[in-house]
Amino acid sequence: MASTPTRIAAFHVNGADRYGVVTEDGIIDLTPEFGSRFKGLKEVIEAGALLDLVAAAEGRAPSWREDEVTYLIPIANPEKLICIGVNFPDRNAEYKDGTTDAKSYPSMFIRFPRSFVGHGQDLVRPPESEQLDYEGEVTIVIGKGGRRIPREDAYDHIAALTLCNEGTIRDWVRHAKFNVTQGKNWDSTGSIGPWIVPFERAGQLDDIALETRVNGEVRQRDRTGRMMYDFRYIVNYVSTFTTLVPGDVIVCGTPTGAGARFEPPIWLKPGDVIEVEAEGIGILRNGVRDE
Amino acid sequence: MASTPTRIAAFHVNGADRYGVVTEDGIIDLTPEFGSRFKGLKEVIEAGALLDLVAAAEGRAPSWREDEVTYLIPIANPEKLICIGVNFPDRNAEYKDGTTDAKSYPSMFIRFPRSFVGHGQDLVRPPESEQLDYEGEVTIVIGKGGRRIPREDAYDHIAALTLCNEGTIRDWVRHAKFNVTQGKNWDSTGSIGPWIVPFERAGQLDDIALETRVNGEVRQRDRTGRMMYDFRYIVNYVSTFTTLVPGDVIVCGTPTGAGARFEPPIWLKPGDVIEVEAEGIGILRNGVRDE
Repeated sequence: MASTPTRIAAFHVNGADRYGVVTEDGIIDLTPEFGSRFKGLKEVIEAGALLDLVAAAEGRAPSWREDEVTYLIPIANPEKLICIGVNFPDRNAEYKDGTTDAKSYPSMFIRFPRSFVGHGQDLVRPPESEQLDYEGEVTIVIGKGGRRIPREDAYDHIAALTLCNEGTIRDWVRHAKFNVTQGKNWDSTGSIGPWIVPFERAGQLDDIALETRVNGEVRQRDRTGRMMYDFRYIVNYVSTFTTLVPGDVIVCGTPTGAGARFEPPIWLKPGDVIEVEAEGIGILRNGVRDE
Repeated sequence: MASTPTRIAAFHVNGADRYGVVTEDGIIDLTPEFGSRFKGLKEVIEAGALLDLVAAAEGRAPSWREDEVTYLIPIANPEKLICIGVNFPDRNAEYKDGTTDAKSYPSMFIRFPRSFVGHGQDLVRPPESEQLDYEGEVTIVIGKGGRRIPREDAYDHIAALTLCNEGTIRDWVRHAKFNVTQGKNWDSTGSIGPWIVPFERAGQLDDIALETRVNGEVRQRDRTGRMMYDFRYIVNYVSTFTTLVPGDVIVCGTPTGAGARFEPPIWLKPGDVIEVEAEGIGILRNGVRDE
């Protein structure tokens, strides 16, 4: 149950971007062997070579200690980075059965990769706002592209899993009536990582525990089995309007319990440590600093 | 007044993507000379080499007739492609002075490049909806990157101008409460082009005529001098939250008069021809076909 998943990370060390397999003893750098063929993990996924990396790492000694490297967001330049809005029923609402109005559809927005930092990096609170907030989310990386992917085939199109702290500047989310774009795209306000875990069986997604902690205090806790729009639905729905391609990243929606939901709201401040944890994926940890 | 602007286009011919200068007699292909240094027009802009292309084309004979090539969207892979919502006052509303509530901000969303086709290509109406609609918009391409760019410096950061038919699937725009993402991102439902025009003086943007015609009938007509959020404001506002980089594309908002505004609404249908024209930029023309 608690066995360590296979973990493949992108990182920066000695002035270069690299990738490799993360073990208990350190990181096995696979850039020397694969770097000429695959610039980054997106290219590895495009080639369907994720498990080749894992095989090549077998039995090797680590190249770097974890504290020597800076984690990067796993897919630096996805063609698409799509986020689903709140995707778990409100535990305090009157309806608690997790059902969805048949006519409703998920809220959805797009973020630029530069709005995210890697694992271990500080989120940046800009001088324009004090309302930096967290949102912990399970995130999928597309392996096989497609359009109008049927729900029943959706899992065949997922290459890997990761986590996202979909950090948000709340007051800027309400700048416009019909879009949250601005508040969701401040430079370095969210994080993705720490690594990707190859997706090999439905049990890795169907009903896993997801939790967000701030300074050790649990703020969000739910299970993916309660998602209003499940992973299969999301892959099907998104691919209805846009052709998914390998390396596309979909951040699949947060449980209730963001700082904005408290009365009064509790915003993140410099020195806070936010951890997003999901069963079988890992713990994404970030601090906060003022710009 | 009616002098032809300098026009630089990306196009596809004989199985390859190329770029060059468009003249009355045809297209001067500059890929042989610049292609090894600059993969596409984004790279040309990053290097600040737009006017080098123009100089190199001087006095040369065209390489291709316009009808031999397929126009591509000018910047194939911008880091960001940001669209501003409706940005001209409603001519029928009670307030006609074009002023903006001091507390309001522009609506804003992001599109993926694959939601656009080049000049001359058909927009694609998907089987899921009959509500394909047009929106004609002036579009800027960032030349010099920056964060928190002051309004008074904004024009120094614009490298070029182009046009966008910000085609939309209207019923999908209303799928979610707070985001128009889905309806704005159907594959091949909009267009950008036909080319980019180097931006050299304020008069090219400050108060130019913008018009959208469907089958020759004027549907949208306004002047950029009446924009609620002008180009300088947009560059300043967007760069407040995200670092702009060379090649970023900002679609600057449409006048009233989209098909959805008619009673009953008039949607685009196969065989229609939509023209978006702006003074000093050109005419972006596209047909419509069913997927």
